Amino acid sequence: MGQNVLEQLNEEQRLEVKRQVRLYAHGAQEVIPSEELELKVAQSVLEGRPLKIKLGLDPSAPDVHLGHTVVLKKMRQFQDNGHIIQLLIGDFTGKIGDPTGKSVARRALTDEEVEHNAKTYFEQFGKVLDMEKVELHYNSKWLRTLSFEDVIQLAGKITVARLMERDDFEERTALGKPISLHEFFYPLMQGYDSVVLKNDIELGGTDQHFNILMGRHYQEKFGEPKQVALLMPLLEGLDGVEKMSKSKNNYIGIDEAPRDMYGKAMSIPDELMGKYFELVTDLSVDEVEKVKADLASGALHPRDGKMRLAKTIVRMYHDEEAARKAEDDFIAVFQKGALPDFMDEVVFDFEAAGVGEKKSSGAGNSVRVLVLLTQLNLFHSNSEASRMIANGGVRINGVKVEDDKARVEVTDEMIVQVGKRKFVKVRVG
Amino acid sequence: MGQNVLEQLNEEQRLEVKRQVRLYAHGAQEVIPSEELELKVAQSVLEGRPLKIKLGLDPSAPDVHLGHTVVLKKMRQFQDNGHIIQLLIGDFTGKIGDPTGKSVARRALTDEEVEHNAKTYFEQFGKVLDMEKVELHYNSKWLRTLSFEDVIQLAGKITVARLMERDDFEERTALGKPISLHEFFYPLMQGYDSVVLKNDIELGGTDQHFNILMGRHYQEKFGEPKQVALLMPLLEGLDGVEKMSKSKNNYIGIDEAPRDMYGKAMSIPDELMGKYFELVTDLSVDEVEKVKADLASGALHPRDGKMRLAKTIVRMYHDEEAARKAEDDFIAVFQKGALPDFMDEVVFDFEAAGVGEKKSSGAGNSVRVLVLLTQLNLFHSNSEASRMIANGGVRINGVKVEDDKARVEVTDEMIVQVGKRKFVKVRVG
Repeated sequence: MGQNVLEQLNEEQRLEVKRQVRLYAHGAQEVIPSEELELKVAQSVLEGRPLKIKLGLDPSAPDVHLGHTVVLKKMRQFQDNGHIIQLLIGDFTGKIGDPTGKSVARRALTDEEVEHNAKTYFEQFGKVLDMEKVELHYNSKWLRTLSFEDVIQLAGKITVARLMERDDFEERTALGKPISLHEFFYPLMQGYDSVVLKNDIELGGTDQHFNILMGRHYQEKFGEPKQVALLMPLLEGLDGVEKMSKSKNNYIGIDEAPRDMYGKAMSIPDELMGKYFELVTDLSVDEVEKVKADLASGALHPRDGKMRLAKTIVRMYHDEEAARKAEDDFIAVFQKGALPDFMDEVVFDFEAAGVGEKKSSGAGNSVRVLVLLTQLNLFHSNSEASRMIANGGVRINGVKVEDDKARVEVTDEMIVQVGKRKFVKVRVG
Repeated sequence: MGQNVLEQLNEEQRLEVKRQVRLYAHGAQEVIPSEELELKVAQSVLEGRPLKIKLGLDPSAPDVHLGHTVVLKKMRQFQDNGHIIQLLIGDFTGKIGDPTGKSVARRALTDEEVEHNAKTYFEQFGKVLDMEKVELHYNSKWLRTLSFEDVIQLAGKITVARLMERDDFEERTALGKPISLHEFFYPLMQGYDSVVLKNDIELGGTDQHFNILMGRHYQEKFGEPKQVALLMPLLEGLDGVEKMSKSKNNYIGIDEAPRDMYGKAMSIPDELMGKYFELVTDLSVDEVEKVKADLASGALHPRDGKMRLAKTIVRMYHDEEAARKAEDDFIAVFQKGALPDFMDEVVFDFEAAGVGEKKSSGAGNSVRVLVLLTQLNLFHSNSEASRMIANGGVRINGVKVEDDKARVEVTDEMIVQVGKRKFVKVRVG
């Protein structure tokens, strides 16, 4: 490769490369090395050869939520331009589980479970990607066949010091927490997968920084062209703080009902709206830039912006009709008086709740739902509140609270509903 | 196991255990844990069950010298008491070589080379051990069959921090020198070999401390009784400083001719005589203790002591007749005037030779042979001296100098011979 690929392009090709590079880089947090993305695209345009884009998937967590769609949407952009998507199911590690036996969560998956999970991925990914054009790979196919000698050859191509640079290894070493030797193999396997797949680009969240660079390392050691790392930002969940995940219960699942999806989207902190537009909607680059500018200038009211966001998300995962209906319902309940004529307004005092002062950024004002409910004097005790949640009797902005361990973002004018008839409007103190 | 094994012994058994433990511990530098050796022997005596004693061998270095016999003689003691010797040829690693490709010396051995080297070991070990009773194992038999999954399971049973405790890893980390990940597997494999062999004791030099303890670690992880580590001291070579090894050319090979063996033994520094008696001769524990005491009290003259040592060594690897003849020759040449009536005495001045002052300990007065020869004015230049050595024309105390890079221990009254007729007697200045 090298600079001279760019010099061989004609004017039309040059514009096409520019267009694609702008599209792929949009919303990405890091492209490593940034200049090579252009070279890869240029080579593809020049030779009329599609690029291979790899995405690794953990086979143990098949519930797809909006956080996952950040990379899926990026994949879709590549797919729309004729490139080849390689979905890699990391079933080899999934089937091993945790060899130390310490992590109960990381138990070994059976072949059937892996297959079932992959199928679930497939069904859900179909909402973002054209699955007919996707290549599906299972890394057990090649990793299972490696002998001890092969493993030693692989291990001989990396130093201990290099592996110790991974953030979590470095942190644990600093804290004196043990690292089991087998953990060193996960980045190594991910790197070797790229050698086998011969992919041009690997996508992932920024938390995959180290592992994806292993792909470059191993491709080079095996004399293959090196992949470019395209790292997408991690999407904060509804609490505005933690990475969206099922375990934190701060997620919008792409299989959720239109009403829940819409209501949850309305609870996203204002400050994150632009990021959500950019990372999880199908608006064009130009449309996203306009929304962001209008929000910044005040030309677009935050509530209207968020309603557009919520409607767009429902439309993407259901349809136009469902999106319109979800919006109508929301307006009917929260804006046109389907709510009681008179509602108690209760001030939520962050300091009294023992969670510190309200942060000026707006994001990060999340509290445990039990703290919220007792602080608003809706229940006398946590256990009473927990029971009502378990019975499905608590809603926030119309969305049912499923888990008494959930955290919620406390916003002004938030509506908390207990049972059929009790409503309070929250005022942030 | 546990203390109560000892309580079950009758008086006769108790004495037998005591006798064996004294024998095995004699000359050992470390027994880890020291109390478990007695328990292993007691169990063996109580149940009439032989112990399994493992010794790992590097298949790439089949030239056996006295340094190797330190552990071999210890093995022989176990064998003489009915225990089972397990010689483990580490052919798996030998066949892999150096996967980083950096070490030219560590090239991969072929099956034929491994077999040839093992045969060479076998022939030479026969001079110390009863090879008919020895179990021979090749670790490729089980290591080759391990899958990647098996390797991950093994790796899951050890932490990175524990491996980093190995002296050389710690040193290299401190110096910023890279450790290749595959190097972590060598101690791990050695540990796993003990799981497979189910040995009770593993023997080795003190440089094997870490690797042998890995055997205990892995046996425990696999639910097996843990081996005892029996670590023998490393034998300094003829220079009195470095560990005896072929590459340092400071060794006595057990295949050498009686005359060379005797002459080389006579060049051992006085201070090491006791250690040699203890570690490489077949004298009984009591005899060794007596020689040491006599040397310390002056009842035994160092030269007479060394002649006894030299004669014993020749007798062990040849026979009584050859030993007597080697002694006679030595006396004829160096003591009864087969030497010229008049010999120049030349003072060797350590300071002038640029190697510092003569050390009072006696050991460690070694210099490069070329420095010695030019300093004694026997040659005008190093290249002239090198040529004569290459032609086999230089002898020290009657032993031909084979290598112009060799180091020699400079002792008072040492005889240096050049060609057929030129002799000088060295005086240490």
